[in-house]
Amino acid sequence: MLEWERIARGAVNVEVEPHLREAVGSGRKLRVKLGIDPSSPDIHLGHTVVLGKLRDFQDLGHTAVLIIGDFTARIGDPSGQSATRRPLEEEEVEANAATYLEQVFKVLDRDTTDVRRQSEWFMGMELADVIRLAGKATLAQIITRDDFRKRLEANTTIGLHELLYPLMQGYDSVAVRADVELGGTDQLFNLLFARDVQREHGLEPQDVLTTPLLEGLDGKQKMSKSLGNYVGVTDAPAAMYGKLMSLPDELITRYMRLVTDIPESEVAKWEAGMKAGGNPRDAKAALARMVVQRFHGETAASPAEEAFQAQFKRGEVPDEVEERALAEGDRTVADALVELGLASSKGEARRLATQRGVRLNGETVEDAEAPYQPSSGDLWQVGKRRFVKVVAPAERS
Amino acid sequence: MLEWERIARGAVNVEVEPHLREAVGSGRKLRVKLGIDPSSPDIHLGHTVVLGKLRDFQDLGHTAVLIIGDFTARIGDPSGQSATRRPLEEEEVEANAATYLEQVFKVLDRDTTDVRRQSEWFMGMELADVIRLAGKATLAQIITRDDFRKRLEANTTIGLHELLYPLMQGYDSVAVRADVELGGTDQLFNLLFARDVQREHGLEPQDVLTTPLLEGLDGKQKMSKSLGNYVGVTDAPAAMYGKLMSLPDELITRYMRLVTDIPESEVAKWEAGMKAGGNPRDAKAALARMVVQRFHGETAASPAEEAFQAQFKRGEVPDEVEERALAEGDRTVADALVELGLASSKGEARRLATQRGVRLNGETVEDAEAPYQPSSGDLWQVGKRRFVKVVAPAERS
Repeated sequence: MLEWERIARGAVNVEVEPHLREAVGSGRKLRVKLGIDPSSPDIHLGHTVVLGKLRDFQDLGHTAVLIIGDFTARIGDPSGQSATRRPLEEEEVEANAATYLEQVFKVLDRDTTDVRRQSEWFMGMELADVIRLAGKATLAQIITRDDFRKRLEANTTIGLHELLYPLMQGYDSVAVRADVELGGTDQLFNLLFARDVQREHGLEPQDVLTTPLLEGLDGKQKMSKSLGNYVGVTDAPAAMYGKLMSLPDELITRYMRLVTDIPESEVAKWEAGMKAGGNPRDAKAALARMVVQRFHGETAASPAEEAFQAQFKRGEVPDEVEERALAEGDRTVADALVELGLASSKGEARRLATQRGVRLNGETVEDAEAPYQPSSGDLWQVGKRRFVKVVAPAERS
Repeated sequence: MLEWERIARGAVNVEVEPHLREAVGSGRKLRVKLGIDPSSPDIHLGHTVVLGKLRDFQDLGHTAVLIIGDFTARIGDPSGQSATRRPLEEEEVEANAATYLEQVFKVLDRDTTDVRRQSEWFMGMELADVIRLAGKATLAQIITRDDFRKRLEANTTIGLHELLYPLMQGYDSVAVRADVELGGTDQLFNLLFARDVQREHGLEPQDVLTTPLLEGLDGKQKMSKSLGNYVGVTDAPAAMYGKLMSLPDELITRYMRLVTDIPESEVAKWEAGMKAGGNPRDAKAALARMVVQRFHGETAASPAEEAFQAQFKRGEVPDEVEERALAEGDRTVADALVELGLASSKGEARRLATQRGVRLNGETVEDAEAPYQPSSGDLWQVGKRRFVKVVAPAERS
């Protein structure tokens, strides 16, 4: 069954596999749920793994139900334990959701995506409903969850509100009548728990499919914006190409499987080729082309490749480029040049830029006051011969 | 300080005692909170221990804040684990609250009692507020609670909604701005937890005072309607007197301390008298008189005593009366007579009653279809010589 092969490709846990397999083969139109957290406005290749799986379902005729977790984003972390979960204003959430959706539809098919917001069903929910909902679950169910158990053992603070979140995520599945839910492997507990919540509400429990967490460009940690080891889906073609060319060789075929849609047979060919002594650089260039094509269209790949090769192949870039760590966070181009030691002052940085002497990933940067957010693999060039490659700091707080 | 002696008398835990002591001595008018559960319409002597303590505060010029837990009574136990916590209709809750209040004011001073209902602040509370409230507490705080810990260790089901109840009870203290909260010793955790909830809301934490749980007429278990070992505050004078005369001797002075307001010096005298060989029957009769006077007025004690003595002293009741166990629950008088072996059929029971041959605690019962709820110590009489005393079953499910 070809449909099933497509669905199962790259999936880690396919719980109750026979059931999902039968549903996919039945010709029935399934409602496939994915919840997203609108606390950041951008998505990167790591996010596209599960989005690509959702697109697979769409291509087979099913409906994607994308749930924007706007409700909890507006509450934040009331215990004040988490700096990253500060409460967001409604406008901020909506702005994030808007850019997020714009980027999501680079992967998903807009026409068969049903976008829902948690606030639709949670805004009017009252304490009495919460108590009834909570009564459907037991403490034991919740604290067998791996991360809760570990935190309890380590005596780390667990706010009581955190116990409500799995319940709420489960209730989302009730509200949208999900047949299937997708998520990263770290979401497995929540996805399974939603099955219990659905059952308690008299619904058929959903099937569950998880996708792997993609390693970042450092080859070690999960891809994440805050770790600076990411490729953003809105990165310019040349930057995207250049960043992917910095990927460790051992991740090339993994990326091919998870962030492109070339057939498994072709991935296997690249794998065999490299084992037989083929140059990983060629495989990596193929991967970089595929990714640029995916997010910028067929015609964008060649110019990006040429810009990259112009620097490296024609000897403009030395084989060994000095690497420098930059902390995360927005700054201006002028600040970055000073931090990287490519300019002695902001004044000098501005002058260099105006004279068209500054390039980022092969493209000239004239505005020294333009904002810049460091990303591992970024290649800065000043004048003809000074190059610095940005890497994520070795240790982060 | 006489005021403090009155407050501290009979109290088990007086947490942060110096603080409460100072508050009581300061002349400031305190808001003293007591929460009651309107799941049953009647109160018994066990309830009057904490109510009496609340009255002490009133007599010293403070305000009693009586909170009727109508909100959770209407929700019941959504996990369906508890048969006794079925959801009640609003009318049922209000009817219970009405009879309950009627009885409560046999102890409390109506004029300085502020009656509040949980629904006042919980009806409009939304999920977002619940999450914020829950975020003020940690899982560790809750599961260190004795009963939760034991149930977790015993693998007994704990519904997630149960974790919300201490929070809600704590929020009650915020809503009514309690300075002090009273409760039975089994409530100590909740009362202390409320202090944290108040602090999180920027309020001064309440002081906490607990009172002992009163043993029932069996001298073993906590007084409870469902165990049939209780004296109801609405029991008729003769029944009340008769039941108290069945109290085990070793509880006489404990009852004097907890359910009468005679001075400690007098209790000590009775104690010394019995140690010196005095008849406990005299002390018990004094206790029974005091309780009847308390709930039925000065003039009610003598007739009750006489009715009791008429049976026992004038030889109408044998010294040794057969005892029979009756399961709890409402039944008709006719059913009870058959169960107790005092009638061979309901028909016979009806005939005996019509002929004025049936007495309960010295009073003639003519209507065999009248409802009857067994209570330990009840004395049934059929004809001149057949007596049976009701006792609680030895084992209960």
